[in-house]
Amino acid sequence: MSDSLLNQINSPADLKKLSRAELHRLAGELRQYVVDSVSKTGGHFSSNLGTVELTIALHTVFDTPRDRIVWDVGHQTYPHKILTGRRDRMHTLRQFGGLSGFPRRDESEYDTFGTAHSSTSISAAHGMAMAAKLKGEERRAIAVIGDGAMTAGMAFEALNNAGVAHGGLMGDLLVILNDNDMSISPPVGALNKYLTRLMSGSLYGEVREGAKSVLKNTPLYEFARRFEEHTKGMFVPGTIFEEFGFNYVGPIDGHDLDALIPTLENLKHKRGPQFLHVITKKGQGYKLAEADPVKYHGPTPFDPLQGIQPSTKPAKKSFTQVFGEWLCDQAEADQKLVGITPAMREGSGMVEFHKRFPTRYYDVGIAEQHAATFAAGLACEGLKPVLAIYSTFLQRAYDQLIHDVALQNLDVTFALDRAGLVGADGATHAGNYDIAFTRCIPNMAVLTPADERECRQLLSTAYQHPGPATVRYPRGAGCGADPGKDLSVLPWGTGELRREGQGGVAILAFGTLLYPALQAAEGLDATVANMRFVKPLDGALVERLARSHRLLVTLEDACVMGGAGSAVLEHLNAIGLSVPVLQLGLPDTFIEHGDPALLMAQCGLDAAGIERSIRARLGQPTLRAVNGA
Amino acid sequence: MSDSLLNQINSPADLKKLSRAELHRLAGELRQYVVDSVSKTGGHFSSNLGTVELTIALHTVFDTPRDRIVWDVGHQTYPHKILTGRRDRMHTLRQFGGLSGFPRRDESEYDTFGTAHSSTSISAAHGMAMAAKLKGEERRAIAVIGDGAMTAGMAFEALNNAGVAHGGLMGDLLVILNDNDMSISPPVGALNKYLTRLMSGSLYGEVREGAKSVLKNTPLYEFARRFEEHTKGMFVPGTIFEEFGFNYVGPIDGHDLDALIPTLENLKHKRGPQFLHVITKKGQGYKLAEADPVKYHGPTPFDPLQGIQPSTKPAKKSFTQVFGEWLCDQAEADQKLVGITPAMREGSGMVEFHKRFPTRYYDVGIAEQHAATFAAGLACEGLKPVLAIYSTFLQRAYDQLIHDVALQNLDVTFALDRAGLVGADGATHAGNYDIAFTRCIPNMAVLTPADERECRQLLSTAYQHPGPATVRYPRGAGCGADPGKDLSVLPWGTGELRREGQGGVAILAFGTLLYPALQAAEGLDATVANMRFVKPLDGALVERLARSHRLLVTLEDACVMGGAGSAVLEHLNAIGLSVPVLQLGLPDTFIEHGDPALLMAQCGLDAAGIERSIRARLGQPTLRAVNGA
Repeated sequence: MSDSLLNQINSPADLKKLSRAELHRLAGELRQYVVDSVSKTGGHFSSNLGTVELTIALHTVFDTPRDRIVWDVGHQTYPHKILTGRRDRMHTLRQFGGLSGFPRRDESEYDTFGTAHSSTSISAAHGMAMAAKLKGEERRAIAVIGDGAMTAGMAFEALNNAGVAHGGLMGDLLVILNDNDMSISPPVGALNKYLTRLMSGSLYGEVREGAKSVLKNTPLYEFARRFEEHTKGMFVPGTIFEEFGFNYVGPIDGHDLDALIPTLENLKHKRGPQFLHVITKKGQGYKLAEADPVKYHGPTPFDPLQGIQPSTKPAKKSFTQVFGEWLCDQAEADQKLVGITPAMREGSGMVEFHKRFPTRYYDVGIAEQHAATFAAGLACEGLKPVLAIYSTFLQRAYDQLIHDVALQNLDVTFALDRAGLVGADGATHAGNYDIAFTRCIPNMAVLTPADERECRQLLSTAYQHPGPATVRYPRGAGCGADPGKDLSVLPWGTGELRREGQGGVAILAFGTLLYPALQAAEGLDATVANMRFVKPLDGALVERLARSHRLLVTLEDACVMGGAGSAVLEHLNAIGLSVPVLQLGLPDTFIEHGDPALLMAQCGLDAAGIERSIRARLGQPTLRAVNGA
Repeated sequence: MSDSLLNQINSPADLKKLSRAELHRLAGELRQYVVDSVSKTGGHFSSNLGTVELTIALHTVFDTPRDRIVWDVGHQTYPHKILTGRRDRMHTLRQFGGLSGFPRRDESEYDTFGTAHSSTSISAAHGMAMAAKLKGEERRAIAVIGDGAMTAGMAFEALNNAGVAHGGLMGDLLVILNDNDMSISPPVGALNKYLTRLMSGSLYGEVREGAKSVLKNTPLYEFARRFEEHTKGMFVPGTIFEEFGFNYVGPIDGHDLDALIPTLENLKHKRGPQFLHVITKKGQGYKLAEADPVKYHGPTPFDPLQGIQPSTKPAKKSFTQVFGEWLCDQAEADQKLVGITPAMREGSGMVEFHKRFPTRYYDVGIAEQHAATFAAGLACEGLKPVLAIYSTFLQRAYDQLIHDVALQNLDVTFALDRAGLVGADGATHAGNYDIAFTRCIPNMAVLTPADERECRQLLSTAYQHPGPATVRYPRGAGCGADPGKDLSVLPWGTGELRREGQGGVAILAFGTLLYPALQAAEGLDATVANMRFVKPLDGALVERLARSHRLLVTLEDACVMGGAGSAVLEHLNAIGLSVPVLQLGLPDTFIEHGDPALLMAQCGLDAAGIERSIRARLGQPTLRAVNGA
């Protein structure tokens, strides 16, 4: 290891001492480090192999952290973390107390802006660039954004603002389009080392491929495609971005330091909005990932020599799979069902549905706002849209949920995956708030299945309900209840009693925490209700339990503030009952990444923690450990 | 009136019986009807004078309501309402129980989609068009969208989806760009009666003006402007929309029925995505409005012969004005202050700030998402952004509030205007939900000033607080408290006792309902606290009041579900106090338009209603009327 260059890099200052040849060697070492590291910890893989050279070049050329780099989405920042003093902590990646899988301002001064949700980087970097101007500071702000992230309307709102002057001032902003659409990789090689605005006729054919790829999946893609027909050889690739007010440079090979470094050196000295188009390959340098970057997008630990092997132990069915199967079965039974995803076909379990019902499947791109209002339009015509969306991404469509769906009481079913804590992705992806932010909206129904079987039943129930409803379920698997194959519904707005106890305590569980509640109830001899509905709340059940117990305990894998427990409090006060209530759920803090079971225990939401909290409230000592906590 | 054509039009079927000459005459009558009607009721004026001919043409040519028209924003639909059976109810416009100022599905079958917030129409109409395809029904879906609404990313997300096939199907969608930017009105006249895709060289100069106007204020504007430099005469106006997959037609004069009707007839028979660009003039036909369409945007009643006259009685200072003055004074005192508005300079009271601090003022267009993350970027650099945004429009930036601002605990102050009920604009604009959807987010502070003086103080307080905070205040004026000129702050997280009573009841008021609470307290001899902070809640004050009263009453002009009252309930349960609490606030329904005072009384939130509710809870008869209810 003594001859390792990487081991000598403890900050970007060390990069600046290396020769170009050493930087080339460093790139090889860094790539290998990513492979070794991520294959041990799991995490994002393909995307990080794609940014090795770009990261080296940026930190070599720019004066970071004085110059600001904002990484869009941020799942491509492992090389950045390794080069900015965090190499030795990479083995802690995405683990509790360890490095985040995304940039974080509180992790390093080099992480200038926390990202994770897509398409925020241009807005943030534009803010930084304008701030520098206002303060009279000479620095650059750099947004590195992928071609996928360009689909969101937010990126266009930002481009619209960033390329023009405000109050007579224009920011020194560099947008780097990290274009890694696999379909365009072959012609890219021929283009490296070129820094081009006008292409010669002989190069034009190849460049067009590059230019098209910029736009793939963006609102401008069709524009560029057809535009060629009009303009023939007149069209300069990248013109679209130039015409937003940016000085466009590219496309260049994002794996070639000899192209990247001189290009960035040039751009560094230009003022005003600059746009660099680099072509990279996801999984670059690791053949198996190059061949199947989706498989290697975010793997669990694997042997880098063998690659990812098929799992030998049969995995429990995830809630995502339960949803996917239900969706197909419900679609089979009802021609009116249409399924919508904002760019999360795999993550939401809709691959099979897409295959079987192609005309009833809509992937709208990273466009949650459009997704919700498009669903509203379909519902107006009597179709029954199911919008599969992660809890955290529904935040992007909140106004559309209120203004277009709920206000018109339209029959849209929201399948909210990744509700509650999501584990390794951490606070940015936490689905903690949806109960609070959906239940306050009139007409909305909010359903919280306790297990896989009930998830299917409540999806059917929400689907048959003639109005808007969310069904929230967590990442991963539940207790393993067989979902079955039927499409039966559960009674609207009613919970069920799962255990009758004599201890004077009634636990009202919303969602999958029912099972640790049942465990905790043993030692306490508590009553346990599976509430199923946050809204409409089963008020009769709440009242019955309140009248027959001295303490009610509400339990949810969502924020306590404004959550399901608060719905219980509101109901009790509305009917004039004053009963002590202990609200258990997620605290009013952003909860870090880590193993979900560990995090839930930290929040006191495992069986032991639930029992402990209840005993503390009752003034009882905790007598024994609870099994399976 | 017997020779009136308009009186014979009770549905679009009646339009189809008229000759072209009669339609021309009808347009004149309809325009006059709008002038007469709106000058009596108040309401949107300029925009509706701009859509008279377009509305006649659409209903004459298309088979409405079988063909669907979705009006973006919807404040230009008075001619549509008049022609679709609601002429005789126009005198009830925007009044309680009367016609809405926007399209509503429950008001007429001709109102196919409720709108009010901008930029939803293409998404909704695309949904309707795809539904027709799936159901095998032959019908058109039409989105009428203004050039301003095109600035929002959502419109681009929709264009991106609407112009391409999904599952092999392509919707029969017509997007009509109602381009009424005043700056382009002169050259438009020369272009009428043309239906053009390729322009001759001699026309080109004029057409370019039209084409540029299409894009004004949109992300593509700069593109088009500079593109001309490259392409010279090769550029076909409208190409951008063609290249999204639409068949572009225009620009045509939107006030010329002889251009509109044949063009729409042509488009009616085309399949797939069509795009018609019409040029209209806001205020068309009413000279004073043509000259100053902003003044005539949404006037209160006026004499149509005189035009809007300066008000003679001095109006109370609105909260918006209080904010605008504070912003200037705070900016004077602190160089780090920057002000941001998403296209609401006038509505948010920022005209003076813009004038005095042009380099520190940002109007980002209808781009709430970008606005919030741009603010986050500025805050990262130590500037102190104040984002002025209506409560209802913050819903558009909810994810950015959570993911970019609150999670990073950045120092952004959100000045939430139009919190609570907004009156004539109705449910779409209601600022009822912000307390619930902001207080559940970690790091967020939520401040609720009771009057103008406290609004200024709490703006200063939130501004000095080193983290994200919202200060919410209602439309219009409060009790009239002089805001003063200082920039003093109030103690963080503390309320104040305003009245000590012996009746056993304590009212905890959040926001401007403090004043009716003080009135109601007289008869009840109740204690009244001005809570000021929803978060951080003054838990010590809550506890003190709970221990010394037999009933707590929480009061807020926001939804009860998840609101400030629930924060009180959560705190009481957290400290183990069981006290009866009566939660007063807005009910879990969408509340219709109407006079705010009337609506508040309907919700039981005037002084009489508050006293009545408390007496009912206490089992007391209501003894007397409360003054000033």
